[in-house]
Amino acid sequence: MTVKIGLLGFGTVASGVPFLLRENAEKIKQAAQDDIEIAKVLVRDEAEKSRLLAEGHVYNFVTDIDEIILDEEIAIVVELMGRIEPAKTFITRALQAKKHVVTANKDLLAVHGSELRTIAKENGVALYYEAAVAGGIPILRTLANSFASDKITRIMGVLNGTSNFMMTKMVDEGWTYEKALKTAQELGYAESDPTNDVEGIDAAYKAVILSQFAFGMTIDFEHVHHKGISGITPEDVAVAQELGYVIKLVGDIQETPSGISAEVSPTFLPKAHPLASVNGVMNAVFVESIGIGESMFYGPGAGQKPTAASVTADIIRIVRRLKDNTIGKDFNEFSRPLQLATAEDVRSDYYFSILTPDVQGKMLRLAEIFNAQAISFKQILQRPTDEKEARLVIVTHSMSKTQLEHVTKQLEESQEFQVSNIFKVLGD
Amino acid sequence: MTVKIGLLGFGTVASGVPFLLRENAEKIKQAAQDDIEIAKVLVRDEAEKSRLLAEGHVYNFVTDIDEIILDEEIAIVVELMGRIEPAKTFITRALQAKKHVVTANKDLLAVHGSELRTIAKENGVALYYEAAVAGGIPILRTLANSFASDKITRIMGVLNGTSNFMMTKMVDEGWTYEKALKTAQELGYAESDPTNDVEGIDAAYKAVILSQFAFGMTIDFEHVHHKGISGITPEDVAVAQELGYVIKLVGDIQETPSGISAEVSPTFLPKAHPLASVNGVMNAVFVESIGIGESMFYGPGAGQKPTAASVTADIIRIVRRLKDNTIGKDFNEFSRPLQLATAEDVRSDYYFSILTPDVQGKMLRLAEIFNAQAISFKQILQRPTDEKEARLVIVTHSMSKTQLEHVTKQLEESQEFQVSNIFKVLGD
Repeated sequence: MTVKIGLLGFGTVASGVPFLLRENAEKIKQAAQDDIEIAKVLVRDEAEKSRLLAEGHVYNFVTDIDEIILDEEIAIVVELMGRIEPAKTFITRALQAKKHVVTANKDLLAVHGSELRTIAKENGVALYYEAAVAGGIPILRTLANSFASDKITRIMGVLNGTSNFMMTKMVDEGWTYEKALKTAQELGYAESDPTNDVEGIDAAYKAVILSQFAFGMTIDFEHVHHKGISGITPEDVAVAQELGYVIKLVGDIQETPSGISAEVSPTFLPKAHPLASVNGVMNAVFVESIGIGESMFYGPGAGQKPTAASVTADIIRIVRRLKDNTIGKDFNEFSRPLQLATAEDVRSDYYFSILTPDVQGKMLRLAEIFNAQAISFKQILQRPTDEKEARLVIVTHSMSKTQLEHVTKQLEESQEFQVSNIFKVLGD
Repeated sequence: MTVKIGLLGFGTVASGVPFLLRENAEKIKQAAQDDIEIAKVLVRDEAEKSRLLAEGHVYNFVTDIDEIILDEEIAIVVELMGRIEPAKTFITRALQAKKHVVTANKDLLAVHGSELRTIAKENGVALYYEAAVAGGIPILRTLANSFASDKITRIMGVLNGTSNFMMTKMVDEGWTYEKALKTAQELGYAESDPTNDVEGIDAAYKAVILSQFAFGMTIDFEHVHHKGISGITPEDVAVAQELGYVIKLVGDIQETPSGISAEVSPTFLPKAHPLASVNGVMNAVFVESIGIGESMFYGPGAGQKPTAASVTADIIRIVRRLKDNTIGKDFNEFSRPLQLATAEDVRSDYYFSILTPDVQGKMLRLAEIFNAQAISFKQILQRPTDEKEARLVIVTHSMSKTQLEHVTKQLEESQEFQVSNIFKVLGD
């Protein structure tokens, strides 16, 4: 039998799918046990269609979504257009027409995932999205299958290739944020408006999806606290290195006694931590669990072929399940009611970079502020910045978000201290 | 419904399985959709049974395998005894009695895997062994499922925790092989006879299993060339570091135009390579493929809970497949006829450490030997060892196994040169 696919969009990633279907035909046939055919490809308009045909692409290009939705021979719709609309409408219509859907659209899944999964369930069809988190890394299926036996306590990830490329340059080459961004844009890693990548929004979308697979909880995007890399200075990077750390933008989801917390923030990672060596545009997901202990899954977070590999693995899974008559199960079956952690339960070490006039007694008064919140210091460093100012760097022992709020407020209210930066520090 | 399990052996790993079934009951129930009960546990003799009962273990301990094989209520047999016999006989009998089998026994699978898989197939039952390679890392299921879309070209792994612990100490602390071995034995990482771990035999077993999942080819253990770490000197370690490498024992399976080659050998890894940061008893599998490109899967290679997590994931999979009525498929369905690579097609850079009398013209004559085989140098280093000898270190550009054999023979036949060590070097 041949299973027919309708492809929505024919950008970079989409053209990687036929590459794999062709170059890996023998193995894919063994896994899927049926042939897979790209029957129709939806493109934006007649102009794009003409251009693609002129370029030598031999697909059956269509410009009307109905040509795919109403085609009863098409069993699987693969959405690779990105953004919320019209992807959401097209996917909804495909699911309602009892077509299985594969998508790599993390924005859509992070914001409207629950709604789409419900529609898929009601219609007894599959909705798979392995490529939505960490592109080429097969993390979602691994969490769903191999971690079924294991209880995950924390999941941390370098989830955005653009910001990780920038941080790698800032750490290894001492580049400023501005230079790193400019280079990332020149290389095509960053868009002209880089907000989603550098402010941790893209990584927060992925954290939403990871929290479902790792903790069985559907956290709202709004509940993922996110802070980006734009405020990181060369001084922060240099001090981190001096103290034995590497700064990276890390997504961090953990389960505490009161519930789960999820955040994306620049984090000081000890140099020996496996995530600290994840460089350039590569991504990695680090898992802590009661069974395996510590494990890490590393690979490219984006790109044509890596993303196409994940999309094609989803397609193969659907084709095989159609053959085995086991289609329609949730991609992730682990589900518990959402419980968010209280601020008291979310604990971490923190780095404070504080500017202060270089006068006698400043360290005493700073120590008083931290001491009043029962926060103790792990590392202290003082540097003169010019003739009149000093930079005080403090790495604390573990403190709660509540303590962090209090001490930050105290520092901000003081006349004497100016908070330059506060970052999370991963303890040893 | 409750699915009943017969456990063969109650050593360290075996007791990790009930730990996970208990501590992760809610999630496991969602994934398996039926209850799982350890109905009987086979122990060696009455003495062991009495000891375990006295220790407070409340299982139904039996000493006769027939109590499990002939018990029609037991659906799954979990073998955690290790070694070839009686494990092989027990597993064979369990499969023939239409019981599904989960095992972590890599020695058995590497040597008798084909035979056991055939028996499982004939009886329509499952034979799963995720824990057999890299303990806690879910690499086999990931290769079988997520890499179905992707064509793997090379797979490299740090596959033996004992030897990696030793190499980490030899590299980071400058320890001799002897000191590293003694410490590994004191810590319980190495057995009193460490041959399997330090000579690459254990890693070669794992390479056999990996080659089936990654390349669809069942290579014989005898065809996995293996060389251990016992010959590595502190000089080799120091020179490696000076040249920008870390030495590790690496299993390496690759597909060449003529077929696949598999070997386990001490390998110079560039410091920035992801495998180079895999330290201590941790394992990792690094995959090169046409779709994803480069990916790595990192975690503990052994230990009670990690191994139990993989074993329990296999159990859950079987219980769920019984529920879904899809049981009996091969763990790995990718299969092609075995083709072994010719020596001409297996290429690598190599490190040569050569001792020679410190006399004029030696470098010229050495260069002549390599030049006669059309091998060119990438890096050269000369060190005096004492008043009369010099150590010449050469890192070559890519050469074939045929060239390697010829040049080694020439060096061994010369009066002048004494080959101290030859190791593989992973190119950048």
